[in-house]
Amino acid sequence: MSGLDRHATELLGRELADRGCDALLIVGASGRDPDLAPFVGPVHLSRAVLLLPAPGPAQRRGRGPLLAYLTPMERGEAAKTGFPLLTPADLEVERLSRERTEPGSFWSAFLEGVLGRSGLAPGRLALAGHLGAGTAVVFSRALEEAGWTLVEGHPVVRRLRQRKRPDEIAAIREAARGTVAAFRRVAEVLAAAAADGADGGALRFEGEPLTVGRLRLEVFRVLADHGLEQPEGNIVAPGEEGAMPHSVGTDGRVLRRRETLVVDLFPRGRLYADCTRTFCVGDPPPPVAAARSAVRRALEIARAGLRPGVRGFDLQEEVCRHFQDLGHPTPVSHPGTEVGYVHNLGHGVGHELHEYPSFKKEAGAEGVLGAGDVLTLEPGLYSVEQGYGVRLEDLLVVGEEGIAEDLTPLPYDLDPRAW
Amino acid sequence: MSGLDRHATELLGRELADRGCDALLIVGASGRDPDLAPFVGPVHLSRAVLLLPAPGPAQRRGRGPLLAYLTPMERGEAAKTGFPLLTPADLEVERLSRERTEPGSFWSAFLEGVLGRSGLAPGRLALAGHLGAGTAVVFSRALEEAGWTLVEGHPVVRRLRQRKRPDEIAAIREAARGTVAAFRRVAEVLAAAAADGADGGALRFEGEPLTVGRLRLEVFRVLADHGLEQPEGNIVAPGEEGAMPHSVGTDGRVLRRRETLVVDLFPRGRLYADCTRTFCVGDPPPPVAAARSAVRRALEIARAGLRPGVRGFDLQEEVCRHFQDLGHPTPVSHPGTEVGYVHNLGHGVGHELHEYPSFKKEAGAEGVLGAGDVLTLEPGLYSVEQGYGVRLEDLLVVGEEGIAEDLTPLPYDLDPRAW
Repeated sequence: MSGLDRHATELLGRELADRGCDALLIVGASGRDPDLAPFVGPVHLSRAVLLLPAPGPAQRRGRGPLLAYLTPMERGEAAKTGFPLLTPADLEVERLSRERTEPGSFWSAFLEGVLGRSGLAPGRLALAGHLGAGTAVVFSRALEEAGWTLVEGHPVVRRLRQRKRPDEIAAIREAARGTVAAFRRVAEVLAAAAADGADGGALRFEGEPLTVGRLRLEVFRVLADHGLEQPEGNIVAPGEEGAMPHSVGTDGRVLRRRETLVVDLFPRGRLYADCTRTFCVGDPPPPVAAARSAVRRALEIARAGLRPGVRGFDLQEEVCRHFQDLGHPTPVSHPGTEVGYVHNLGHGVGHELHEYPSFKKEAGAEGVLGAGDVLTLEPGLYSVEQGYGVRLEDLLVVGEEGIAEDLTPLPYDLDPRAW
Repeated sequence: MSGLDRHATELLGRELADRGCDALLIVGASGRDPDLAPFVGPVHLSRAVLLLPAPGPAQRRGRGPLLAYLTPMERGEAAKTGFPLLTPADLEVERLSRERTEPGSFWSAFLEGVLGRSGLAPGRLALAGHLGAGTAVVFSRALEEAGWTLVEGHPVVRRLRQRKRPDEIAAIREAARGTVAAFRRVAEVLAAAAADGADGGALRFEGEPLTVGRLRLEVFRVLADHGLEQPEGNIVAPGEEGAMPHSVGTDGRVLRRRETLVVDLFPRGRLYADCTRTFCVGDPPPPVAAARSAVRRALEIARAGLRPGVRGFDLQEEVCRHFQDLGHPTPVSHPGTEVGYVHNLGHGVGHELHEYPSFKKEAGAEGVLGAGDVLTLEPGLYSVEQGYGVRLEDLLVVGEEGIAEDLTPLPYDLDPRAW
């Protein structure tokens, strides 16, 4: 579970060398901190610090990783990580927390203790993790006075967790399984509503007008049954609400025939999953039907182009050309456009909802797809004027030859009765 | 919802003056960042920055609060906060994110933009919020080069959110309602198990051995039905596991007659709730029965002492005297004890699970209870040797005369059949 495999060790060495750093220092707000979790695995830790010296000379001199935890009761959990430990007693946590009541002051002394016991000479550190910003500013000043230089370490961690290990893919697969079940339930409710007599276009379910809030409750229950939570919420956005990709949808809004419904779910178990489908009960208006075909084709183009070594932005450009050929504005043809295809093609998924690989034009090595990456592809088309949004998003594991696994194998039909 | 009432405004002025600061700067990872949420209310924002200048001279010169958001689509949500806005266009977010791909570099420029438009002359800022630690270190260096000095602002925010507004109390009450329902379900399952024939002491429920994991599932479902999540997990700790206050309990463990079961639930809706009860199916062994009486009395002592102006630590001392009189070690009589009463009496609850008021000896003004504080009282007794833990925890609103509202009005009985 824990520790670094050979790939991660090599990458750590390269990323630290690029930044002239001697070690990566991760200050975790808990064991679930997305910068700490990839290294410690699914253990119950509150605050903890992981120091990963650059592989090579320092490690050959016996200066290896160290995990420092703050609560004596977490000894057993800390031991499960497999890292050599610095205990609360080693670091005099009880005395420090009595003497230093403000967090920045406490962490200054605590981190000086960790570094003092690491065997490293004061030098340059890449810093990651998510303690409070004000706390970080205070302890970084103390460490700099003690001779250390701190630089940003989040991109290092993101690179290290870009390629997923089998246990991480398993955790994403488990979250995806619950996500798929939630979509099946949404389709079931919409199909039942489609069969019910619509009241002047408004959909009904179990004798009541069917609202966004009701669908959210159904989604919540299915996800809960799978042990999944939604720390970043979800999107259930009908008609004109779905025309704005960041609108999450209003609970009280009643769903109607012949309008689009964008459902984008991104729950978390141990790791995240992410998937989008678009529904339409009744005959879709011609622009919606056309948009759905165009988006479906864009997803095919992107899926077909997926393989190690390809840049995410190359796929984005291909998809943009496809949409432009059909007359839709895109971020390539019309930077900042709010109609047509208005966003990026995808993103990595894992310990955070959005992580590497990156699909941005400006991306460096993190913009190149590799085997073991888990990512979404999510083309869409939007028109505020015509009041629709259509987005389809698959969650995929990249393999040596292309897609190794489709984690969200669901229909793409607008019509819930076809599901 | 948003903005600062008179109490908060006065407190902000005092806390900033104490630190020689001209403003509080909050860099929120999202609208739910516990440092940002108390000010912006329940809006859907991703990253956002709130600048709150010290009330008084600066504000009289028209330098009031400013909320900066980063995503054009969140204009509507940002407007709901009621704060004057700096838009992504004002701050050239699109250009900055293109030109500055590492987060620290981006935030340096973004925050310089916010401060540049604030009308404040470079001076001293209290910093709060939860961006990545490495990011904070990089932008703080850039701001310091531009003439600003940053100090820790988390304690300022904690002071500002110590006394809860009615809408915040309502949100905690809602979370507490789901928590109470989950405890009722736990008691129901245990009572059913008590009625079933025990298999050599092991409890059975619906034809199977009753495990910690099964009880967790029941809790999860009830909380989910109330729209509550458990970002920090929960404690369902039988026998010797409950004897260590930080042990969360092992899912596969089968529950047994005549052993204690500590259930500590701390779910979050918009805000947190927190409550603990201890159960025992069958006749409790004499030490458990005695511990339960002692803890029940300790809770009564603490509840009776609760009123504005009292220090949390004074109540802790009173409870320690009570336990010591009965022969139990306490943190006062035996610092660092791992048997007897081993922890502190309580903590504030709200946007974070643990917040002000503080019950620590070292606490300053944040250690004084006030009307509108929402807090827990949670005395307990533990013996690893005898394999039991007993803790009772109530969630209370402090009023002018004492307890204004008991948010977790549940029985204290060990026996689930008495519930």
